[in-house]
Amino acid sequence: MHDVVFDIGDLSPTLCRPAVWVPDNVITLDETLAMCRRIHSGHQKLRTVLRMIENTGVQKRHLIQPITATLDHPGVTARAKIYQREVRQNLPAVVEEALQSADVQADDIDAIVFVSCTGFTMPPMTTWMINELGFRQDVRQIPMAQLGCAAGGAAVNRAHDFCRAYPGANVLVVTCEFCSLCYQPTDSDVGTLLSNGLFGDAIAAAVVRGAGGAGMTLSVNSSYVVPETESWISYEIKDTGYHFRLDRRVPGTMSMITPALKQLTASNGWDASNLGFYVIHAGGPRILDDLAQHLAVPAHAFRHSRAVLSEYGNIASAVVLAVLRHFFDEGLPAGAQGMLAGFGPGITAEAALGTWTPAVTRQDPHALPNGTDREAEVIRVRSVVG
Amino acid sequence: MHDVVFDIGDLSPTLCRPAVWVPDNVITLDETLAMCRRIHSGHQKLRTVLRMIENTGVQKRHLIQPITATLDHPGVTARAKIYQREVRQNLPAVVEEALQSADVQADDIDAIVFVSCTGFTMPPMTTWMINELGFRQDVRQIPMAQLGCAAGGAAVNRAHDFCRAYPGANVLVVTCEFCSLCYQPTDSDVGTLLSNGLFGDAIAAAVVRGAGGAGMTLSVNSSYVVPETESWISYEIKDTGYHFRLDRRVPGTMSMITPALKQLTASNGWDASNLGFYVIHAGGPRILDDLAQHLAVPAHAFRHSRAVLSEYGNIASAVVLAVLRHFFDEGLPAGAQGMLAGFGPGITAEAALGTWTPAVTRQDPHALPNGTDREAEVIRVRSVVG
Repeated sequence: MHDVVFDIGDLSPTLCRPAVWVPDNVITLDETLAMCRRIHSGHQKLRTVLRMIENTGVQKRHLIQPITATLDHPGVTARAKIYQREVRQNLPAVVEEALQSADVQADDIDAIVFVSCTGFTMPPMTTWMINELGFRQDVRQIPMAQLGCAAGGAAVNRAHDFCRAYPGANVLVVTCEFCSLCYQPTDSDVGTLLSNGLFGDAIAAAVVRGAGGAGMTLSVNSSYVVPETESWISYEIKDTGYHFRLDRRVPGTMSMITPALKQLTASNGWDASNLGFYVIHAGGPRILDDLAQHLAVPAHAFRHSRAVLSEYGNIASAVVLAVLRHFFDEGLPAGAQGMLAGFGPGITAEAALGTWTPAVTRQDPHALPNGTDREAEVIRVRSVVG
Repeated sequence: MHDVVFDIGDLSPTLCRPAVWVPDNVITLDETLAMCRRIHSGHQKLRTVLRMIENTGVQKRHLIQPITATLDHPGVTARAKIYQREVRQNLPAVVEEALQSADVQADDIDAIVFVSCTGFTMPPMTTWMINELGFRQDVRQIPMAQLGCAAGGAAVNRAHDFCRAYPGANVLVVTCEFCSLCYQPTDSDVGTLLSNGLFGDAIAAAVVRGAGGAGMTLSVNSSYVVPETESWISYEIKDTGYHFRLDRRVPGTMSMITPALKQLTASNGWDASNLGFYVIHAGGPRILDDLAQHLAVPAHAFRHSRAVLSEYGNIASAVVLAVLRHFFDEGLPAGAQGMLAGFGPGITAEAALGTWTPAVTRQDPHALPNGTDREAEVIRVRSVVG
């Protein structure tokens, strides 16, 4: 996959190329609309719902089970088993790819941030990863389940913080979301029906390297809770599992979040309206439209968020890593300034700023990545053939 | 409560005096035994179970509901509502006391680590705390639900890490465990019946001050997963909620954990067998007996763990904070070396080392706490009358 790569860096943590996995079962927009028409033929707001689903821009989604099994609710007991089975089957390859992309081994990893709001286990899946995937017994386990879609940003930020605490440490970030396991056939409010047409399943992982590495070199991060919006994105916990509640006012929160994002960029001496890349949670099209407007950036700036939304749907905490991967594919100039932002329940915005550190090929050893002019405390030169 | 206090310190994070709350409903050992005899009169291993419960040393426990309501399982929907109601009613006073003990205000707090394995919410309760208890909108939320009893140690360690990442930051640690909400009347294996006589409810909170403060000044921390014991302490996730599974081999894991604890102390130049204080998770009496033996410390060293077990039962992640409070009450000499260790699912051990920094009263301003001979980057002098 890669060319021969030199990783040269100081002790600024770098979020490396993410690996993204989606299941084989595909449901297209047309299938979603047909299904919605069939199941909710008598629904009072069917036309509104169908229009909203069409407007999401989601062309297809990938689900861990065929659609008939997805629409069945076999109970929490059965769904918990499916969750564990699917994680164990599909996570290892994603993790392996993320490690390879970062040019680290499992035993180089010092902490694992595992976020997932669509299934619950105790002990956390990090324990299983330590036992089965070669991670060290002394890896710090940081499992977080309750931050929903914002957890993608939170996971990157907690990994960044860990690297600040232990310079040179490497942190694996895993986002694992099987939203289809939260499908609730008895719920038929507009927010739920929209969600049924919006969310998809995916696993994404990436390494934050404490030294060296190519990708988004993290500088600062922030968290912000919009006052008095606690119930706007939430789970109702019931005998039938997690029931997702989505308030119609959610898209409107971008105007309330924007000042916090602008404050973060200003604190770094940057202009939020004029960054080189935007890794924005694709919660829905309105969120992207509104945020682009409030940040005064062209629609093109969020092209990769729209691409992820279109090809996978809203894959919750995994979105930001999937969007970031698009930027790796596209390529960015050294030193490009960027923002990564996850939004979710709270309503919480978890944002990070960083600059782009490209990989340097052996063919061009003198083109050093941005950052090497900073005081280098550690210089690692590694070569890898992926 | 306090005398006038000077907090003088450098940028070493200090775990301050915990606040601990237990509910009013008390169940004594005799009541537990009588209840077990009545409910499980025909159980094949009743005598074994009764003997095991007697051997726990738990004299009483505190429950959020009267015992008849505790024994009823009204379903996950109802229990989720009870969980939220009890957190909202009882958490604020615990948090307030923890803040006061640390001489900080809510808006001095930069991160909240909220651990709770006995109830689930999305968004996390940290969002509610931000909205209702005066915490800043930009507080980092670190909710962790999947580390069970080990989460007490993990919460302190993640707070410590956050202070390493952001020197001078203050982190609030909250452990909130309503174990009685996980009572499962249909389970009657020996591990479950023992657990039914062992676990209690409690909320505990403490501030890790990034600068200044009196208490356990944290130096290093570690995490360790015992290989191949993933299923030994676990939840089975069912339609009826979390079903706690406890393997009979759990107490035997102390021999496997001890080397990791000894390695941690050795890495700090300390002797695990000869510390000034031990804040050890009171999972059960066998765990305390075995660990004392493997560490070669007298039974007296774990006196406060036994006291917490006796008066509250195993209150899961809240145990370590409750044990630490006993040491505050007893008083420790400046510079005393200590270990804090939580054990739980994984099987995971989360351990921390620190030295004791006593409060200095105005009456004795020249008796500076340990640590002031270190290079002081920040000196805060505050006075508070509690």
